[in-house]
Amino acid sequence: MTIHSFASASSMLPRDVRAALGSDVAVWQNSGLSALELPFTGKEFADILALAEHDLRALLDLPDTYSVLFLQGGASAQFSLLPMNLLGGLKHCDYVESGHWSRRAIAEARPWCDVRIIESRDEGSLPPPGEWDRSHDAAYCHFTTNETANGLQFHSYPEASDVPVVADMTADFLTRPVPVERFGVIYASAQKNLGAAGLTIVIVRRDLLGRARSGTPAPFDYARQAEAKSKVNTPPTFAVLVAARMLGWLRKTGGLAAAEERNKRKSAKLYAAIDGEFYRCPAPPPHRSSISVCFRLHDPALDLMFLEEAQARGLLHLRGHPAIGGIRASLYNAVEERSVDALVSFMSDFKRRRG
Amino acid sequence: MTIHSFASASSMLPRDVRAALGSDVAVWQNSGLSALELPFTGKEFADILALAEHDLRALLDLPDTYSVLFLQGGASAQFSLLPMNLLGGLKHCDYVESGHWSRRAIAEARPWCDVRIIESRDEGSLPPPGEWDRSHDAAYCHFTTNETANGLQFHSYPEASDVPVVADMTADFLTRPVPVERFGVIYASAQKNLGAAGLTIVIVRRDLLGRARSGTPAPFDYARQAEAKSKVNTPPTFAVLVAARMLGWLRKTGGLAAAEERNKRKSAKLYAAIDGEFYRCPAPPPHRSSISVCFRLHDPALDLMFLEEAQARGLLHLRGHPAIGGIRASLYNAVEERSVDALVSFMSDFKRRRG
Repeated sequence: MTIHSFASASSMLPRDVRAALGSDVAVWQNSGLSALELPFTGKEFADILALAEHDLRALLDLPDTYSVLFLQGGASAQFSLLPMNLLGGLKHCDYVESGHWSRRAIAEARPWCDVRIIESRDEGSLPPPGEWDRSHDAAYCHFTTNETANGLQFHSYPEASDVPVVADMTADFLTRPVPVERFGVIYASAQKNLGAAGLTIVIVRRDLLGRARSGTPAPFDYARQAEAKSKVNTPPTFAVLVAARMLGWLRKTGGLAAAEERNKRKSAKLYAAIDGEFYRCPAPPPHRSSISVCFRLHDPALDLMFLEEAQARGLLHLRGHPAIGGIRASLYNAVEERSVDALVSFMSDFKRRRG
Repeated sequence: MTIHSFASASSMLPRDVRAALGSDVAVWQNSGLSALELPFTGKEFADILALAEHDLRALLDLPDTYSVLFLQGGASAQFSLLPMNLLGGLKHCDYVESGHWSRRAIAEARPWCDVRIIESRDEGSLPPPGEWDRSHDAAYCHFTTNETANGLQFHSYPEASDVPVVADMTADFLTRPVPVERFGVIYASAQKNLGAAGLTIVIVRRDLLGRARSGTPAPFDYARQAEAKSKVNTPPTFAVLVAARMLGWLRKTGGLAAAEERNKRKSAKLYAAIDGEFYRCPAPPPHRSSISVCFRLHDPALDLMFLEEAQARGLLHLRGHPAIGGIRASLYNAVEERSVDALVSFMSDFKRRRG
């Protein structure tokens, strides 16, 4: 039976990448060592790290005015580390509240700065970036590009201003082109579109470095990590290799524009199968995510049956976020169109039998 | 050519473990998924995490009064996170300064607490734990069991008192039996004796939970992670699997007492080859480490030649810590006795040719 995983984390890997990594663990190139055994101070790992950064810069067309950091701790750690690193002498930070994950970011920032909720939508829609009531005296303005738990995604980005824009792009990082020059900081943990859990990418505009408060842990101090090329302490070497392989695959398959086209096609097929009657999608069409497709069955009693029957057919990990419930299909870059086809076919069959 | 790595991080893996992990990356048991693709919320990963904790508890004979946390960030992050988690209402923390790594721990703790250096030795020896001038009003008393850069190791442990003892055991974690009841917190990053960089184990006595200061990042709050079974956010799932495999191997090969015997035998062979003339070991014999064997050639100009010729024979990563220089052989659990034999044989040959 073919297995299709729609897990929120960790995502599936492209089959080529998965095969290459199995071989990397056995032996890394002509080193005689497993990829897991490479010293983080050696040339082999320096080459892997440089390749990952090179491909990331190429994909995003990232200017030299930005540093790329390979950190640990997950995006959740950044929720606290952003104000620790960026507040400088200022007090206020703007936050857009748009769902589960932006609320988590806000809760963790509160002990470190005066959080201003500049937009808040409880009804499951997203406040258009052009209408945000942005402050002039904030250290930064934070938002979450894709609310995975709620199935919402911003389809436009805020303009740049004197107050740097900071974006948690964890769920949709590298799933579409991004106007990086509009951002002060972009961060994303890797387990969705870059492979292995345990790695967090932080892209930071260099003029924002050096503002960290005293006591910021050295491995999480942006300026120190930028200076040390992410080697203040031992980086998660194997997770960086997984990311390097994912980035290489993404370039080979056409880069971000091609990825966006594939992701739009995949999600459009799935949204088309959500008929509004038997299957219902709470997210309003203009704000629906191409990456996190969340829906419910018309009768909540059917949710569990749907999940169990799907699993029996190899359609795995479709349970919604615990805070929200229902069904969620995460369609990260490595989820193939044939997986969506299999899910759509199952949905049609399930509806015929249970509708 | 057989390859022997004496790297400080990442260490070599046992051959069985390396083979098993290559297969795990290809496919995890009968899941149809790669071990890299397992959802962190699913049963497969819960089983892996439970197995790792079970084997760790068995190896250390760890009482139920301790929690085991599987975190990210490295031991270096703990340098700041210890005072953030443990200070409670107190102000002072005792620190033993014994070399490079304890100094790093002290520097990172200073912004968070009033650090009292209760012992300091600059001459490369270690202050006996029974003679430490321990405070009665400190939140904890911190020391580093093995100073990897300096080649020093404590061969006895401090007694328990009302002030909990906190130990950075990164380099010699699980290399010998430990009287865990004497400790409040034991922490260690995994890339030396537990496999993959990107995982940090924190063992914390439960009565010390719940003292974290406001703002401690959620993924690093000991109480929150203990409550959430290390799943406050996505844990480094594959690194946890590597640790589980390392722990299983360690139990299968006789546990900590057998590991200590092997490690003592390996290091004794190497120290015997350091003749005090051509090869010189700055660490005084009572404080020499069984894990980090640091030495110099009588003429520093020979260091580079030694390293290059060793590398040409497959004896890799023997360069000393950048802060110290010279030669360092890290003899972690997975470094085999035959690797030490090969190094000793090369040292004898090099001395004959260059002496």
